[in-house]
Amino acid sequence: MNHPDNVVVVDDPADPRLDDFRDLNSIDRRPDLPSGKGLVIAEGVLVVQRMLASRFVPRAFLGTERRLSELADDLRTTDAPFYLANAEVMAAVVGFHLNRGVLAAAPRPVELSIPQILEGARTIAVLEGVNDHENLGSVFRNAAGLGVDAIVFGRGCADPLYRRAVRVSMGHALLVPYAWSSEWPNELEVLRDNGFRVLAMTPNPAALTLAAAMETLEGEKVAILVGAEGPGLNERTMRASDVRVRIPMARGTDSLNVATAAAMAFYERARLAP
Amino acid sequence: MNHPDNVVVVDDPADPRLDDFRDLNSIDRRPDLPSGKGLVIAEGVLVVQRMLASRFVPRAFLGTERRLSELADDLRTTDAPFYLANAEVMAAVVGFHLNRGVLAAAPRPVELSIPQILEGARTIAVLEGVNDHENLGSVFRNAAGLGVDAIVFGRGCADPLYRRAVRVSMGHALLVPYAWSSEWPNELEVLRDNGFRVLAMTPNPAALTLAAAMETLEGEKVAILVGAEGPGLNERTMRASDVRVRIPMARGTDSLNVATAAAMAFYERARLAP
Repeated sequence: MNHPDNVVVVDDPADPRLDDFRDLNSIDRRPDLPSGKGLVIAEGVLVVQRMLASRFVPRAFLGTERRLSELADDLRTTDAPFYLANAEVMAAVVGFHLNRGVLAAAPRPVELSIPQILEGARTIAVLEGVNDHENLGSVFRNAAGLGVDAIVFGRGCADPLYRRAVRVSMGHALLVPYAWSSEWPNELEVLRDNGFRVLAMTPNPAALTLAAAMETLEGEKVAILVGAEGPGLNERTMRASDVRVRIPMARGTDSLNVATAAAMAFYERARLAP
Repeated sequence: MNHPDNVVVVDDPADPRLDDFRDLNSIDRRPDLPSGKGLVIAEGVLVVQRMLASRFVPRAFLGTERRLSELADDLRTTDAPFYLANAEVMAAVVGFHLNRGVLAAAPRPVELSIPQILEGARTIAVLEGVNDHENLGSVFRNAAGLGVDAIVFGRGCADPLYRRAVRVSMGHALLVPYAWSSEWPNELEVLRDNGFRVLAMTPNPAALTLAAAMETLEGEKVAILVGAEGPGLNERTMRASDVRVRIPMARGTDSLNVATAAAMAFYERARLAP
């Protein structure tokens, strides 16, 4: 095939031009740590495509011939170099065998603000203490699939741009707008000032059922507030909400996984206020 | 503390009495493989408690002093030995550091049959091609939480008793009755003969919405049929179903994770036919 101008064949894993992709598993390369490089890594054709469609601008790609050809159309929109390597060279660079065959690296843009992400939004998710990258990724995937417009992070959440979160989100962590709260939980007031009703999810049997609560809010803007599995929402956060809602659960069972519980609320909202 | 009679202090990781727990990550110990030992492993206090409440009968435990004391009441019901070790000995036996601090090993009982698990059931899940242990575990957890009575495995599903599946299920893989289909998809006929209406989940926009379909089936027995992410249900399986249902999805998104999609259906069923 004819390669576009920005394709660079590499066969030396030590090539310093590949440093953005080096030793991805080792702790000191984690972009969310102070010692990290501040890069966002997309893995696989679909996620790379979504990165190219997002506000994250790749500055380099590393991939195999096959993935290059699958991405040929998408790569027309970028001038960043595509480092073409075989699977062995790629594995030697990243430090493990990568079966998705392509990576993109983008610098982190300036974070969005809460007022920015609320503009035009009618349904948002608000997370507290969700410190597991897989759960965060799942929340983004579910939010995208079920029509949630934006996500606010309260205290104690993990980095949604960490590689694993981006991968589990199927790239939606790059597409669904999110913002960090700096004053938590007081900033829930900003949501209310913007017309949102704040629903706090709880296992408390005295709370309204999800269906009953959502029915009363069909015409309103809704913020769905979920806490980590186990501890759940902080009591101060709970008090700062407007309505407490629960998923009716079978006897003798625990709460659901946090991303699954959030998905139930997203689903119920989409059913009643599509 | 006074140890019950069946507590055995061990300090040699090579002790052959610990063989049930040896090298849990290495492939030849995987119980679901022909070379495996056919054991079911429960990890952590909660899952061990659920194993003790299930039809799976532990034949040995391995754990720390702290977990032994947390399980003291539960262990009154068993005569199996509890091998008491420190965290280092445990790590040397199982081959990795185990932060849950306790394991139980049970032989596999005879599998239940489809007629056995249908008895008294009103809502069941039926899986095809769900070959990921984590997804399987999540389906069991969601089934337990949302009142699904039993699970049928069609072709291509992974072993629900594999350690990772049991852990992710929070032990519900040991409690929610399941059975394997031997003739797939023809055996869906057995469900129908038992009064079940078979709902097949599909991303097809021509299908009924989950809510619309479930509303018409409030008084009936329902089997919720889900396929793997990506390929979805086989066409023959789809044809053998009674109703095709979809989750209304936002534009530009893929299907949801299979366990999440199943959870939406379980939720909708529980909402309408609690």
